[in-house]
Amino acid sequence: MSDLTINAKRLRNDVETLAEIGRGADNGIYRPSFSDADMQARAWLKEQIEGAGLDFYQDGAANIHARYQVNNSIASVMTGSHIDSVPGGGHLDGALGVLTGLECIRCIKESGLSIKRPLEAIAFTDEEGRFGGILGSNAICGNLTAELIQSAQDLNGISLLEAMARHGLLAMDALDASRQADTMHAFVELHIEQGPVLERQKIQLGAVDAIAGLFKWSVKLGGVAAHAGATPMTMRQDAFSGLAEFSTTLNSVLEKHGSSRSVATIGRVTLSPGAANVVPNQAEFSLDVRDTDENVLNNLAKAMKKELSEIADRLDLTFEYDILSEIKPVLCSEKIISLIENNAKQLGITNHRMASGAAHDTQIMAGKTQAGLIFIPSKDGCSHSPNEWSDWADIENGANVLLKTLYQLANE
Amino acid sequence: MSDLTINAKRLRNDVETLAEIGRGADNGIYRPSFSDADMQARAWLKEQIEGAGLDFYQDGAANIHARYQVNNSIASVMTGSHIDSVPGGGHLDGALGVLTGLECIRCIKESGLSIKRPLEAIAFTDEEGRFGGILGSNAICGNLTAELIQSAQDLNGISLLEAMARHGLLAMDALDASRQADTMHAFVELHIEQGPVLERQKIQLGAVDAIAGLFKWSVKLGGVAAHAGATPMTMRQDAFSGLAEFSTTLNSVLEKHGSSRSVATIGRVTLSPGAANVVPNQAEFSLDVRDTDENVLNNLAKAMKKELSEIADRLDLTFEYDILSEIKPVLCSEKIISLIENNAKQLGITNHRMASGAAHDTQIMAGKTQAGLIFIPSKDGCSHSPNEWSDWADIENGANVLLKTLYQLANE
Repeated sequence: MSDLTINAKRLRNDVETLAEIGRGADNGIYRPSFSDADMQARAWLKEQIEGAGLDFYQDGAANIHARYQVNNSIASVMTGSHIDSVPGGGHLDGALGVLTGLECIRCIKESGLSIKRPLEAIAFTDEEGRFGGILGSNAICGNLTAELIQSAQDLNGISLLEAMARHGLLAMDALDASRQADTMHAFVELHIEQGPVLERQKIQLGAVDAIAGLFKWSVKLGGVAAHAGATPMTMRQDAFSGLAEFSTTLNSVLEKHGSSRSVATIGRVTLSPGAANVVPNQAEFSLDVRDTDENVLNNLAKAMKKELSEIADRLDLTFEYDILSEIKPVLCSEKIISLIENNAKQLGITNHRMASGAAHDTQIMAGKTQAGLIFIPSKDGCSHSPNEWSDWADIENGANVLLKTLYQLANE
Repeated sequence: MSDLTINAKRLRNDVETLAEIGRGADNGIYRPSFSDADMQARAWLKEQIEGAGLDFYQDGAANIHARYQVNNSIASVMTGSHIDSVPGGGHLDGALGVLTGLECIRCIKESGLSIKRPLEAIAFTDEEGRFGGILGSNAICGNLTAELIQSAQDLNGISLLEAMARHGLLAMDALDASRQADTMHAFVELHIEQGPVLERQKIQLGAVDAIAGLFKWSVKLGGVAAHAGATPMTMRQDAFSGLAEFSTTLNSVLEKHGSSRSVATIGRVTLSPGAANVVPNQAEFSLDVRDTDENVLNNLAKAMKKELSEIADRLDLTFEYDILSEIKPVLCSEKIISLIENNAKQLGITNHRMASGAAHDTQIMAGKTQAGLIFIPSKDGCSHSPNEWSDWADIENGANVLLKTLYQLANE
């Protein structure tokens, strides 16, 4: 096994080739799931799988599997990610995990080393959310319902049913993609960090120990619209001033009630009526709060509510909120984390444990099988952008750690 | 003169009749200048002027004048406001000043009392700004240019030239509406306060001593877009957090560098990219700052710039701003303020001096003649809304103060 290393040149060639499929004039990648570019990428991927002498398999959710030594009576070791992209996204988000997974299985096959378990590299359908997101991994884990499939549609009102039918696929077949837990031994994903931590700390690899959960609220603070000239400061019920005050307390609320991993973001603000010369009677904003510990998240939700209520009371505003989403944190397998850490260490790759603040297919797969997630540094923490970049050396390091980890898991 | 009082019933009837012209399904008034409703209101007003035996005169800017004892060799005492409205506005904003002015001249005529100067009640064109605002008073004061007239257009791209031509009017004639200063002895306007001060302080009338000037900026704070989950709080350059921090310092900046009349408003905010799960890389917002003292305004502009620069430096953001508009404060005539105060006092009407934070035709007229502005209370400080309301008793009080003031000025 000590000789087992990926073919960096071949992997790079794959990454660069896939990056040309769906590339826009702005250099961004446009491969929303079931778009023409996505279908073209899928066809190309199929060629690579078959060209490597692996089994090509597409399940009911249109997840693409590259399988080696398939054996229905033995639980597989799985890897993978997604090849769909956000509109104008980068070339590594998802794609790198799929291509690295494929490369690892190719290497193991070529090495002639024996393995005890089948290997599967998967390209999951619609991770990025044209139709809601992390669709393919949810299908495999049996989390979809007929209702959900029937109601899923994109921002242009095109339904999942319609989008799949255009390519001769039946969306309802996604229900058949569900797998029994005993067919899956482990899942390990490699992904770019999409954040600045590894780069800033000059660490080559992250062994993710937990994927943050979150709550996302739409908050409304209500005041009274008033003439910006005719209304003295002391007679205002300015909805925006409530939001501003709340925003400045976020860090202290996180410090008091959160953990070192807690983050909170106000990314969207809409003022009504939204005119320069009118004191706003409503500030509606998004509040996205994440942590890897469910209790911490609960405490933060309580603390945010309390803070907002107090500010609203003090400024004579109304306060209400809707929950847009709530996702529970997910822990990675302690055993897989250790494998990743040890493999990195043996290869002389600096690494540390970290959380994933972003959602990934691993988050879903961890609900059914022991899971791990490897991060490699993102240049400037940048993602979902044509500027997304990771150094080839970091990619090679991450791929070799994945390779060794998959090999070890396949021999358990 | 002690018997000189307005006919409250007649005034109320006029106000209620005009309020039905251009009233929308939401009960709001829709009379943008040169709309069909505005033309209908103009025709109705002409009938009232002629019905009262006053001279009807329309100048090149389509300002309507109700004139009594016109004499080109004697400077007139003028009053008035506007009958155009914002879309969905109230029934008193502007209309009350025109109809009260008309009522005052009718009363003086009916009283048979002699006056030394001609009287004019004016309905100014486009105060509310379909084509830029305070157009008619600027025309009379000679502030228009051919360029400005030719370039003026509404939000639907309809030009002033086109809108006036539809009604057989030549927009370029507005240049001819310009009057020599020596044709104008004084101008006094009655207007609803459009703010909450009189009502809250239970004062029946405001003698405006100054109309606030303002600066309006479009401010941009620039940071770095980042994943809301993957970016620790300490590694963010969050553009919105800069805006929030600035907003919370507004009151202290006003206290330190402003006067008791200073106000500052952030009414419009746009975050980019504006997604719940992305730390915003740009916060663009409007900043509207007003005061009645030019030096105070200059100091506030400097202080706001300094505050924004310091916040940007501290949070590692960029800061730039564009000036959207700058209007100098205008002082009312000390003599007219005293007349208003004394007349109110004699009528047992509680009153106090106050600033106007909103712009009015008086602001323009004060550039050419001694001017005064009477405020009456606005219910809940509400304006530009179907809920705009003032008690009839307050209207009657204000009208009687205006009547006496005009009569006195007409006998100077």
